[in-house]
Amino acid sequence: MALGTDYELQDCALARALEVVGERWSLLIVRDAFYGVQRFNDFLTHLGIPRAVLTARLNALVAAGVLRKEPYQQAPLRHGYLLTDAGLELWPPLYLLSRWGGRHATPGGPHHLFAHAACGTDLDLAGACPHCGGPAVPAAEVVMRPNPGRSAAPRTDPVSRALARPHRLLEPIASAADAK
Amino acid sequence: MALGTDYELQDCALARALEVVGERWSLLIVRDAFYGVQRFNDFLTHLGIPRAVLTARLNALVAAGVLRKEPYQQAPLRHGYLLTDAGLELWPPLYLLSRWGGRHATPGGPHHLFAHAACGTDLDLAGACPHCGGPAVPAAEVVMRPNPGRSAAPRTDPVSRALARPHRLLEPIASAADAK
Repeated sequence: MALGTDYELQDCALARALEVVGERWSLLIVRDAFYGVQRFNDFLTHLGIPRAVLTARLNALVAAGVLRKEPYQQAPLRHGYLLTDAGLELWPPLYLLSRWGGRHATPGGPHHLFAHAACGTDLDLAGACPHCGGPAVPAAEVVMRPNPGRSAAPRTDPVSRALARPHRLLEPIASAADAK
Repeated sequence: MALGTDYELQDCALARALEVVGERWSLLIVRDAFYGVQRFNDFLTHLGIPRAVLTARLNALVAAGVLRKEPYQQAPLRHGYLLTDAGLELWPPLYLLSRWGGRHATPGGPHHLFAHAACGTDLDLAGACPHCGGPAVPAAEVVMRPNPGRSAAPRTDPVSRALARPHRLLEPIASAADAK
């Protein structure tokens, strides 16, 4: 995910962050990882991304310490991709950017809503729980659900089907898809 | 800033946000706009970006409603680029992504620190003021300064020189550069 010599002159923490996750697909891969997507084929069908691009981006995110590979099957050996601790800390900026997109770039508003799992209250603009207070709710304590004000796009891939129901972030989606 | 047919399938607020600001240079242009950069040549020298790329990205950010053009000179007519209200709301996700980059992707930590102008207290991880409380501090009330723990890169463009001192976000940098 090299970004060119000029770009590297931007000696700033934001530029460094964008070197890791600024590529157009990388943040959507990270988003899917928060949704619980772990397996290559699930990223592939949900993102509609070319196979070679997905391979390159996953490898770059592993090299950057955002994702880690973990075996989910031994014979033949298969790996899934999980968020590292550093990757998990991308939830607040990702959530805020998503909320901005829902307000300013998505006609009709967002397709998913995010709530605090413990109390069911929708997160505020900063990703905190207005009912429980405190800082931004960690991803593992967030439940997403389709926005009832939006008609869902009729997509049939396993990830889209899983996300058509309330779903706790980071809970693996692949196993449910495999069980069908 | 078209992102390809596959990408457009990602019917999600984050994907929409990334269509607007997900291109690798766009968020750095928006960052510079928060720093107070308004003029084409100042973006050009500070970002080290090819002229044609900068033109395309500025036009796309104007078309997306993130930046607006405003004349700063009549003969010959010259325009600067300022953040719109929607653009100003990108400050919290930008700040959070920058903090993430400072923690996880910048060896030695961030080059700039951000404080609440009213009280001088450094912002917390969520962009709020630990002293005054409340939600994230708006960009207009934030002062940035070089991180004394870092040796500044020896850059001599007007924007870098202005940012070598404490600087209030959104205060125009160009006029100081012109006065030299």
